[in-house]
Amino acid sequence: MTDAAHIAERYIAAWNETDAQRRQRLLAETWTPDATYVDPLQRGVGLDQISAMIGAVHDRFPGFTFTLAGEPNGYGDYVRFSWGLGPAGADAPIKGSDVAMLDGGRLRSIIGFLDQVPG
Amino acid sequence: MTDAAHIAERYIAAWNETDAQRRQRLLAETWTPDATYVDPLQRGVGLDQISAMIGAVHDRFPGFTFTLAGEPNGYGDYVRFSWGLGPAGADAPIKGSDVAMLDGGRLRSIIGFLDQVPG
Repeated sequence: MTDAAHIAERYIAAWNETDAQRRQRLLAETWTPDATYVDPLQRGVGLDQISAMIGAVHDRFPGFTFTLAGEPNGYGDYVRFSWGLGPAGADAPIKGSDVAMLDGGRLRSIIGFLDQVPG
Repeated sequence: MTDAAHIAERYIAAWNETDAQRRQRLLAETWTPDATYVDPLQRGVGLDQISAMIGAVHDRFPGFTFTLAGEPNGYGDYVRFSWGLGPAGADAPIKGSDVAMLDGGRLRSIIGFLDQVPG
């Protein structure tokens, strides 16, 4: 697995973790403590805010999971990948693409974009 | 024209400017003085480096021009867009997608990715 794919898979795993304690542990392993996240709907600074933000997405879309779409790729400290969010086994109604900036192999800053949202 | 489209068009205009003095002026109007650029092949910090980097691309691909592909979009201080680089009137052999971070409406940081390169 490439570094980009590995990073993207660990990123998606944290987004799919509904247990707050396990999610915090995944974030601590993979993200820097001062990591930032932004997308058109939300932003978070630091792992507590980012974990709460992910929890709020699960509250809003119970049972939905994130899946990677296509092949993550990147270079140096930059990774990009696309994803879907939807009920297990169904075509994802929500799709997006993220760009991640790394620091020492950990996620330091994520910029998220939405590619598809339900009308 | 949306802000994202306007920013992307001015960005592409600077990349297409072969005259170093005019290019420096375009960069000064649209980018912050400490702007940074990175892609898989090159990086630049500050307008002098970025202008020299663009000049080197013209030296390497004489007569090639950049064109926007699809619709630029974004939110807040973030813009993304795709582009092609090739001879005028031909299908672009080189394609990429960039994410731009703005500061006060000016380009402060660009992360470029390559979507297609000749084999």
